[in-house]
Amino acid sequence: MNDYVIYLVPAFGLVGLLVMAFKSAWVSKQDAGDANMQELAGYIADGAMAFLKAEWRVLSIFVLITAALLAYTGSIHEVGGRQIHSSWLIAVAFIIGAVFSATAGYIGMRVATKANVRTTQAARTSLKQALKVSFTGGTVMGLGVAGLAVLGLGGLFIVFLAIFAGLGANQVKTAIEVLTGFSLGAESIALFARVGGGIYTKAADVGADLVGKVEAGIPEDDVRNPATIADNVGDNVGDVAGMGADLFGSYVATILATMVLGQEIRVNDAFGGMSPILLPMIVCGLGLIFSIVGTFFVRISDEKSSVQNALNLGNWSSIILTVIASFFAVMWILPEGTITLRGTSFTRMDVFWAIVVGTVVGAIMSIVTEYYTAMGKKPVMSIVRQSATGHATNIIGGLSVGMKSTVIPILTLAAGIVVSYYFAGLYGVAIAAAGMMSTTAMQLAIDAFGPIADNAGGIAEMSQLPPEVRERTDNLDAVGNTTAATGKGFAIASAALTALALFAAFVGMAGIDRIDIYKANVLAGLFIGAMIPFIFSALCIQAVGKAAMDMVQEVRRQFREIPGIMEYKTKPEYEKCVAISTKASIREMMLPGAIALITPVIVGFSFGPEVLGGLLAGVTVSGVLMGIFQNNAGGAWDNAKKSFEKGVEINGEMVYKGSDAHKASVTGDTVGDPFKDTSGPSMNILIKLMSIVSLVIAPYIYGIGQ
Amino acid sequence: MNDYVIYLVPAFGLVGLLVMAFKSAWVSKQDAGDANMQELAGYIADGAMAFLKAEWRVLSIFVLITAALLAYTGSIHEVGGRQIHSSWLIAVAFIIGAVFSATAGYIGMRVATKANVRTTQAARTSLKQALKVSFTGGTVMGLGVAGLAVLGLGGLFIVFLAIFAGLGANQVKTAIEVLTGFSLGAESIALFARVGGGIYTKAADVGADLVGKVEAGIPEDDVRNPATIADNVGDNVGDVAGMGADLFGSYVATILATMVLGQEIRVNDAFGGMSPILLPMIVCGLGLIFSIVGTFFVRISDEKSSVQNALNLGNWSSIILTVIASFFAVMWILPEGTITLRGTSFTRMDVFWAIVVGTVVGAIMSIVTEYYTAMGKKPVMSIVRQSATGHATNIIGGLSVGMKSTVIPILTLAAGIVVSYYFAGLYGVAIAAAGMMSTTAMQLAIDAFGPIADNAGGIAEMSQLPPEVRERTDNLDAVGNTTAATGKGFAIASAALTALALFAAFVGMAGIDRIDIYKANVLAGLFIGAMIPFIFSALCIQAVGKAAMDMVQEVRRQFREIPGIMEYKTKPEYEKCVAISTKASIREMMLPGAIALITPVIVGFSFGPEVLGGLLAGVTVSGVLMGIFQNNAGGAWDNAKKSFEKGVEINGEMVYKGSDAHKASVTGDTVGDPFKDTSGPSMNILIKLMSIVSLVIAPYIYGIGQ
Repeated sequence: MNDYVIYLVPAFGLVGLLVMAFKSAWVSKQDAGDANMQELAGYIADGAMAFLKAEWRVLSIFVLITAALLAYTGSIHEVGGRQIHSSWLIAVAFIIGAVFSATAGYIGMRVATKANVRTTQAARTSLKQALKVSFTGGTVMGLGVAGLAVLGLGGLFIVFLAIFAGLGANQVKTAIEVLTGFSLGAESIALFARVGGGIYTKAADVGADLVGKVEAGIPEDDVRNPATIADNVGDNVGDVAGMGADLFGSYVATILATMVLGQEIRVNDAFGGMSPILLPMIVCGLGLIFSIVGTFFVRISDEKSSVQNALNLGNWSSIILTVIASFFAVMWILPEGTITLRGTSFTRMDVFWAIVVGTVVGAIMSIVTEYYTAMGKKPVMSIVRQSATGHATNIIGGLSVGMKSTVIPILTLAAGIVVSYYFAGLYGVAIAAAGMMSTTAMQLAIDAFGPIADNAGGIAEMSQLPPEVRERTDNLDAVGNTTAATGKGFAIASAALTALALFAAFVGMAGIDRIDIYKANVLAGLFIGAMIPFIFSALCIQAVGKAAMDMVQEVRRQFREIPGIMEYKTKPEYEKCVAISTKASIREMMLPGAIALITPVIVGFSFGPEVLGGLLAGVTVSGVLMGIFQNNAGGAWDNAKKSFEKGVEINGEMVYKGSDAHKASVTGDTVGDPFKDTSGPSMNILIKLMSIVSLVIAPYIYGIGQ
Repeated sequence: MNDYVIYLVPAFGLVGLLVMAFKSAWVSKQDAGDANMQELAGYIADGAMAFLKAEWRVLSIFVLITAALLAYTGSIHEVGGRQIHSSWLIAVAFIIGAVFSATAGYIGMRVATKANVRTTQAARTSLKQALKVSFTGGTVMGLGVAGLAVLGLGGLFIVFLAIFAGLGANQVKTAIEVLTGFSLGAESIALFARVGGGIYTKAADVGADLVGKVEAGIPEDDVRNPATIADNVGDNVGDVAGMGADLFGSYVATILATMVLGQEIRVNDAFGGMSPILLPMIVCGLGLIFSIVGTFFVRISDEKSSVQNALNLGNWSSIILTVIASFFAVMWILPEGTITLRGTSFTRMDVFWAIVVGTVVGAIMSIVTEYYTAMGKKPVMSIVRQSATGHATNIIGGLSVGMKSTVIPILTLAAGIVVSYYFAGLYGVAIAAAGMMSTTAMQLAIDAFGPIADNAGGIAEMSQLPPEVRERTDNLDAVGNTTAATGKGFAIASAALTALALFAAFVGMAGIDRIDIYKANVLAGLFIGAMIPFIFSALCIQAVGKAAMDMVQEVRRQFREIPGIMEYKTKPEYEKCVAISTKASIREMMLPGAIALITPVIVGFSFGPEVLGGLLAGVTVSGVLMGIFQNNAGGAWDNAKKSFEKGVEINGEMVYKGSDAHKASVTGDTVGDPFKDTSGPSMNILIKLMSIVSLVIAPYIYGIGQ
């Protein structure tokens, strides 16, 4: 066995983290602007840390209890005369996964709260420099997430293999079983971070807008608005820390699902039969390296250059380089001849084609998402026109755009499943997802740059800097809105493929050979599963609504009771608003999180694996649809509103900000806020988390309900 | 064989139709009011007939083409030396089903357009008399639908049995196969009638309100509004004719699905082994008779009596009497001892319990729906409160109420499936649906009385009758809103159970023994199936939006170009608005209808029965959820708006009509209109129609994709 290969994986991760440290130091070195800007940035950084600390306090209790439960289940392996409590190891892996996930979010948030004010300062000089600072901030986040994931998975796998050395045939299987704990920890934190952060950011955003913009008539991000700091903190805890934890979880889950299926494959290779297990880690490690390469292409020459084109160039070069490198990796690692998994046979070339299918599916999903949410395109223009007849038609327009936008993504996904399965069976579906996720570092860099630019604009506004500064940050922010939407399309596609791979892994571990929805109880499971994304979304949306109402009342109170705010004489009590968002989001993330974690356990132990399989299928299908629907409706409403800012032609007349049509479009935007930033993006974590919980309990529910 | 039993079924149907004719004559005999009222009622009746004629013209082409295609498939049976082209018979059954369905809608619409003005006239005297006229109108509709269904199914079954006499063991099977054509015809017309009628009624309603109420400031149903006649026509073509065709289709499909499963059962009974096939027809026939009995309980003594209580008494007495009678029917028809279907064994007592389960599920669905949509209850009050902070929070509130309202119905449905299966296997699930549907005549009478009362109020307003008349009709109309919501909950529950029964029937006919979603292509089918309700809803909602905009422009034009409308000097051109709604609804119903009909054919012939099974499961699960979500969100928004009419307390203050909060609630109501009256109620037909199409093509796709 070529032992060194297995060490390559954590090495890739370390390279990523080193580059990250280097880039992070570069960001810190940049000019942070004048004292006023630094003070405002300080409020934002403090608010964000306060939230993270409050969140971690609650989550650490959850993590310890869950770890104890995992340890208590107590399966024991005899290894060379010693007894190994694998359940203890699962608990440890779970804790490490949770800590890594929280760390990924923390790294991103730390650099984002530094990069924001430095981007503002850079924007005083040029667009080019502002892009450089904000994108480098995003890159730190991307490399941190991917680096920690690859290092954590690769490193733990080596450790667990060593611990279980002597188990013989079961060594690899047991090591991977224990490794699912790592993924469970990562995905649990991801869910709470995404939901909590999502509630935080939208409660602050909606609350700040409703009183500030609508009632008091002051602009967005005005320093006199008591909720403006909370709003800017929200960008960091929701769109940065939440998203970082989210993609960390996805990335780990995807690789792990492929490893679980890979360990079922018996091959005669140069790596002791481990090549199908190593491949997903190697592909993702390569993706990490080529994401770093891709970042060099993200640069513009002057004020007129297209930021979107620069990002696209970086994205596509990293994807194409990774695909090419994957070809060589597949040829090098997998053996020649036929590979067989659960009765399906394929060659290593087929595996490569499955990887290609994954990247193509990801690309189509991104393009379709962009079409449905971009300014000037037909769907957004239809909402713009329907705004002219009032609030109600604006809402009807957005809902129908969101629903329609599910068609092509679902057909693409269905085709992706069938074609990648055609090439390489279930392993093909899983490796397609891994291929799609391999350039997560680049995806995340592009994604995270958006909220940094958004914050930079906020600081420019609050510091009353010259208008050209705000123009430059607005330019970056507008691009960030599009990349945020396409990033979500990508995330939901990868979640669907990953969930399917986890689903297949679950079937294997639970010892069933089918999930037959023709059976009454399995069909009942399917119904209940499909309902969960509805109640989950309802709880998220409602939480935003409730927290926003609290925020509205606090802002109104401050305007009323603190004299001199409007005349810039007194500072508002920013920290009160920050506290409201923090408390509300922590409180409201509990119930949806509990539903996701506990439902599979109850159903699994009560009705057995086949019914649980039906439940998972229901959650996956309905979650993907609700995710696409909500993300795209929200994105389209947002850009329909933005269309009025520059003026837009409706029935031959130019209509601008402040018109009745614009007011109607603000309604849609506000409804879309929790859709696209709270419930919509939570769907992909919901799907994966429930699949991972099922995978972890699979060995214990073996045989129930048969 | 006790031959006479089989004749009992059409006899039940004939009794229903006779009573209907009697009641219809009674309605016609009532006083139709003064010349002005009759003129207005004449406009409504003419508009409704114009729509039906236009719709029939298009649908007759569709029916003839489809019938030709069905005939062309050409399967031939040898019977006693003669060749029987069963495909020709399917085509004939299809045409008869389509004609019966259209007739059911026509009967309802005819009586409704007579009963409306007569109810107005009766309301000049007393509430008691107004209820009597409007409810008798509804009863005619209910008895017409159920009577035609029982007569058609029972009669055709006798005819087909006679034609296939001599086929021996295959006689009954072939007769029932051919009978699926009847159900296909009924359900196809139901889909077009429901979607077309739904688009019609909401385009007119939204268009009339946007210009009339909001822009011109004239009350609802004002005679000066050019769209008011179209609006009142809409109640008849959508809520009466559309719903009549809908429930006719459901009723037939439910009975047929049970018959298909019943013919697989081999029993030794007094009816030549046909008892499991006869039972659903007998139960539904009994339900028809006891619905007639129940109508006698629907009466009030004076102005203070509760109309809701009177309707509840009628409803519950017919349900309880039917359940009791079903017990005796089961005991009489089914043999003692063990009955076996596809490996599941049960007794006749178990079959009775399954019927009870069905009625309990239906009752719970109705109660839950009422809770989520009724005025003064928590969900509606939460929307009322959220209206105080604006349009956006009103919408967020309604969407989250709608999503949350899926939980208990889905758990009830899942439990209903599992428990009825537990009692009597798949036959239990099917007969549970039949039990739930057995009192359709009463359900429909209660449902159809609502739009009649609504119309009566419109005529009272347009004729400027004294306020106490409008008060009486408003009282009836308010009750009608609640019964409409609960009726929809009932319809979606029965659709889910029926779809499952059809699903099981399909599996048998297509020769597969599982639908394994663990297979990649079946899972892809599940995804695509689940997407269809989203695109279907989007198309319906968008059609309403577009048609409403056309209506708005026409109404604006008339106000602008025709002098003297506002001063009651000139009559508006009502017929132009009627023509716009008619044309738009006919045009826009095509695409969604085509999707429902063609998708199963393409998927079935391309990928085979198992993938088609996955598709059906996806449509069913997602359709039920989207149906409940949209119906209840729409109903809750409607009643949140209505809450302001009498004044409602928000944060300790009384808020009334005309306030900003009320305006926000009107936005929700307008968004909810297409939800609750176009896309939402179409979901149950979509589900069943796709299942029936699959069932019809099942024998032809046998073996594909295996």
